[in-house]
Amino acid sequence: MRAAVMRRRELVIDTVPDPVPQEGEVLVKTLACGICGSDLHMLKYAEQMAAASQEAGMPFLFDPRRDVVMGHEYCAEVVEYGPNTSGPVKRGDRVVAMGVILHNGTMQGVGYSNECPGGYGELMLLAAGMLLPVPDGLPTEHAAMTEPMAVGVHAVAKARLEAGDAPLVIGCGPVGLAVIASLKLRGAGPIVAADFSPKRRALAAHFGAEVVVDPAQERPFTAFQQAAGGRPAVVFECVGVPGLINQVMRDAPHSARIVVAGVCMEDDRIRPVFGINKELSIQFVLGYTPDEYASALHAIAEGRIDVGPMITGRVGIAGVPVAFETLAQPEQHAKIVVEPWRA
Amino acid sequence: MRAAVMRRRELVIDTVPDPVPQEGEVLVKTLACGICGSDLHMLKYAEQMAAASQEAGMPFLFDPRRDVVMGHEYCAEVVEYGPNTSGPVKRGDRVVAMGVILHNGTMQGVGYSNECPGGYGELMLLAAGMLLPVPDGLPTEHAAMTEPMAVGVHAVAKARLEAGDAPLVIGCGPVGLAVIASLKLRGAGPIVAADFSPKRRALAAHFGAEVVVDPAQERPFTAFQQAAGGRPAVVFECVGVPGLINQVMRDAPHSARIVVAGVCMEDDRIRPVFGINKELSIQFVLGYTPDEYASALHAIAEGRIDVGPMITGRVGIAGVPVAFETLAQPEQHAKIVVEPWRA
Repeated sequence: MRAAVMRRRELVIDTVPDPVPQEGEVLVKTLACGICGSDLHMLKYAEQMAAASQEAGMPFLFDPRRDVVMGHEYCAEVVEYGPNTSGPVKRGDRVVAMGVILHNGTMQGVGYSNECPGGYGELMLLAAGMLLPVPDGLPTEHAAMTEPMAVGVHAVAKARLEAGDAPLVIGCGPVGLAVIASLKLRGAGPIVAADFSPKRRALAAHFGAEVVVDPAQERPFTAFQQAAGGRPAVVFECVGVPGLINQVMRDAPHSARIVVAGVCMEDDRIRPVFGINKELSIQFVLGYTPDEYASALHAIAEGRIDVGPMITGRVGIAGVPVAFETLAQPEQHAKIVVEPWRA
Repeated sequence: MRAAVMRRRELVIDTVPDPVPQEGEVLVKTLACGICGSDLHMLKYAEQMAAASQEAGMPFLFDPRRDVVMGHEYCAEVVEYGPNTSGPVKRGDRVVAMGVILHNGTMQGVGYSNECPGGYGELMLLAAGMLLPVPDGLPTEHAAMTEPMAVGVHAVAKARLEAGDAPLVIGCGPVGLAVIASLKLRGAGPIVAADFSPKRRALAAHFGAEVVVDPAQERPFTAFQQAAGGRPAVVFECVGVPGLINQVMRDAPHSARIVVAGVCMEDDRIRPVFGINKELSIQFVLGYTPDEYASALHAIAEGRIDVGPMITGRVGIAGVPVAFETLAQPEQHAKIVVEPWRA
């Protein structure tokens, strides 16, 4: 199959072997796959990620020196079940599925694996037990947004919101937008959101932010305090660059809870005394549960989250390398979707 | 009065004006006052603390360029109430009191103030409304341990322990010991505690640690996992030196909650990916509530916390500078008590 392959820190377009479904697996054809900021990170930092995971005693399931086909925000079509395997979706129908799969006896992440390619290629393997049918009438590219929206559902769940809590979202890239959408679903508010990009601020408002702030014009915490008064602050850090956590710690009010949903792969510097003086808490989050993934699909399918305006570009496999470069400039795009069947 | 005064980053013995109680205040004679690690930090980092507090928008109530009489772990004797003021303890009786006081219209911290001297001097001002009588029969120096024990009560309260949570205490100085004592009061366990000092490990066992670890011999998290199995981990960081938070983040199991009770005044470096990969949470804590302070006194008075073995030295005012130096070597001492009436 054709795929955009991560090979020696570069994305190359190549033909790689078609994956073959084993028992418990299903072969699917990729219909659409969003490009995630994590993949931009991965391309840049794969070795560091592997080293950090090893140092922390966590499994890291792929060897960055070998090929990886990334892409984990997919909607696909069922091609063929593996031997002795059936599932809730018939051949030719559309599915989404949380990308964990028991393959050759080890747990693999679809798109984070040397064996299980992700959606930047024409074909993937999914776990038959994870398949969720895509409701009729839901656009394929909207279904592909299930995964990034699940990230927001999970981040908000980990925040353990209580009545009266007031949210502030720092950074309105796809993660920040998903957090905003999930906060809106829960009825939390007023939602204050900050981003330097006018386009992303407009998307933040679309997804439910009541107050949008340009940090070049006004400190986000100033706008937040005007909107929220003295209510308990829950701050979602959705940027993931060095220095951001410390900046939030410096500016947050007393007793604020900080949810770190941005993925900073580099070492970072903090001043603990900001945390101590104000008794801050920091919750790091990653991923989502199967329930959260399913609830994201349902929220999109039922129109409770309108993901359409978030999709700002579409490319074929050959367009992936350029799309990665384009996404480094936040003003241009929010989410670019790869459609491997596209010429 | 005589006092050990913080003046230009040094401790000097001098005579300073006697404090005069205003309305709402009570003049007390210091009977005993523990030396706290925070005061060692303060002597070294007063300017940085002032700068960091200002940067974070927090009030910092004393000018480090002016004299400060430190000392906030006191037991005292009521000398005289201010004008139009009464309180629950009569002249000549012993009291402890949380060290916040409205003085000249601003909130001051006793021992963290240019106007309200702490217990390293012969006399102090306390808020009449904060006074708690010291029960008969409770040794004065034990009552003086109310404040450090309240720090442990608070840290454990902020940990929001749930049934089945397993605690690990890193560092068994006074803060770590207070955390262990408070965990024991709550019936949490098994309590695993780590410190390089044999003396402090013995104190940890006295206060209730079931497993004590010498990090020079064994990784604390290895001992913890043997004792706690896969139970949810709550890690109390009670050391407060740069690098410790990151080390705990690196070694902690998935979903661990880290309570930072150690006070690191310097900039620190963390690797966020440790937190992200394992969805760690970090709760910074400081101080205690009036209820927590009172509950610490009651636990000591009722014999549920035996603070006696923690007190490893006693000095007069003239001995304070040397005691500060001695406390930098953890093997020698846990808590040194200043008795200003001592020659």
